[in-house]
Amino acid sequence: MSKISKVAIVGGTHGNEFSGIYLIKKWQQQPQLLARASLQVETVFANPKAHAENKRYIDADLNRQFSAQSLADYDLANYEQSRAKALHQQLGPKANPNMDLVIDLHNTTSNMGPTLILLEQTPFYKQLAAYVKMQMPEAVIFLEEAEDDMAQHRFLASCGKYGVLIEVGPQPQSALRQDILEQMERMTGYILDFVDLYNQQAVPELPKLLEAFLYLDTITLPMDEQGERLAMVHQHVQDNDFKPLNPGEPLFRTFNGEDIYYEGNKTVYPAFINEAAYYDNNLAMSFLDKVYIEVN
Amino acid sequence: MSKISKVAIVGGTHGNEFSGIYLIKKWQQQPQLLARASLQVETVFANPKAHAENKRYIDADLNRQFSAQSLADYDLANYEQSRAKALHQQLGPKANPNMDLVIDLHNTTSNMGPTLILLEQTPFYKQLAAYVKMQMPEAVIFLEEAEDDMAQHRFLASCGKYGVLIEVGPQPQSALRQDILEQMERMTGYILDFVDLYNQQAVPELPKLLEAFLYLDTITLPMDEQGERLAMVHQHVQDNDFKPLNPGEPLFRTFNGEDIYYEGNKTVYPAFINEAAYYDNNLAMSFLDKVYIEVN
Repeated sequence: MSKISKVAIVGGTHGNEFSGIYLIKKWQQQPQLLARASLQVETVFANPKAHAENKRYIDADLNRQFSAQSLADYDLANYEQSRAKALHQQLGPKANPNMDLVIDLHNTTSNMGPTLILLEQTPFYKQLAAYVKMQMPEAVIFLEEAEDDMAQHRFLASCGKYGVLIEVGPQPQSALRQDILEQMERMTGYILDFVDLYNQQAVPELPKLLEAFLYLDTITLPMDEQGERLAMVHQHVQDNDFKPLNPGEPLFRTFNGEDIYYEGNKTVYPAFINEAAYYDNNLAMSFLDKVYIEVN
Repeated sequence: MSKISKVAIVGGTHGNEFSGIYLIKKWQQQPQLLARASLQVETVFANPKAHAENKRYIDADLNRQFSAQSLADYDLANYEQSRAKALHQQLGPKANPNMDLVIDLHNTTSNMGPTLILLEQTPFYKQLAAYVKMQMPEAVIFLEEAEDDMAQHRFLASCGKYGVLIEVGPQPQSALRQDILEQMERMTGYILDFVDLYNQQAVPELPKLLEAFLYLDTITLPMDEQGERLAMVHQHVQDNDFKPLNPGEPLFRTFNGEDIYYEGNKTVYPAFINEAAYYDNNLAMSFLDKVYIEVN
């Protein structure tokens, strides 16, 4: 087992997600709050220009620019594509990263509570998730689609040897809620605690099985041929992130007042329901499966 | 009594407040939903350019550009200042308006429910508010600061002979919630119903006293000398729009974890608590007084 010595905590990857941005500012004033015996922790403000303009991004979503292919393509030169290359130098490179762990802080307008998003399902990640869940039972564990090759992962957190996202909501864009900020701060603290215990080979006994949600698919709003939306997320689904959606239950409500039903053949667990940031692409929600993973 | 014959329903005065924008689109497809015997109703999309860019505004807040002084100043030539002059031609002019009533549709990220904002407190407004409250007990009546001279009012709705705002939340910017859209649609319908009854001198018996909230003041977040925020809205206040805030109760939480208390000498009723759109100016909330007005 190699130690996880260098940790980067990244805020403001999306410029209008305020919890991470204000936590970074707070921790820069009070670095002792991040101090753990076996770790070096640094803070990174990923997209200050987008934050200054109070927007998610200037030219393109920063958190989709980190595939090895994009990072190697110097014709991709807009602000976020350039910023990604700079951050990859700072946190990566993926082949031999400066950072052992990258914690990327995000907010959602969806009712997802404090969610820990894992990029892979190796033993380190599973133990980390089990520890966080043990300390913070309200935490939700979200498993990203498995990538055969992490080098091609598009997320900022994939720059580190390990990478996780903390995604906390509901919080409107450009607003700062005390409850959401405190959930993010607590989850970040538990992650640092775990890594310190892991380095000292002092991880406590963890539950053997962990409930988690595995990403399946992303669902689009119903549209007409001119690209106009025909419907909105149904109130039967709204705010029910990580709750079961069964075949035959209402999914959308058209502007004519008709219901559109979920026609799949298995129960799914939606998340990022009606996320405001996904309105550019008319995404309605993600579907996930509920799974139990073995912690070993 | 002169009839109220021409009504304009305005959506998208702020480009990222989606309920009004989608209702306008819906009503343009289904104009029969707005039809009332004694009325001509038209729909207006106030700031389509800001909506296309998914922003509140391009250059300046459109809903602050309608004072007689600004409208007469042709050096004020940015997008919203120009758009205001065009809308004033269409809906006004204030001295002799084309529109007898302007209904301006807004969303807030604050937990204000369906709120009817009145620009004045003349008998027509009070009867209208009492009728809406009778049909929709969850509605909140919000009284704008009295202006000596409506000509100097900065709101778009002041272009009409009468003007009201419908303000419904909580809804994140750039998202569309079914519950919020339906509340806005119902309140708009009750206003049209009332105006039709008023024209026909068939207004039913109304309650004699009406609970309302009178605007007092706007409160700023605590800031340091460099213009950095020192605190956020306290969770004791968050989401408690129109609930009493008593002297000595917590108002802000600093990033150092300290509480700042409300030091006024009377109970107030906050609204627009932690509204995301007011983050540009670091506004925390408005304070209102709870009053009972006589309906006559």
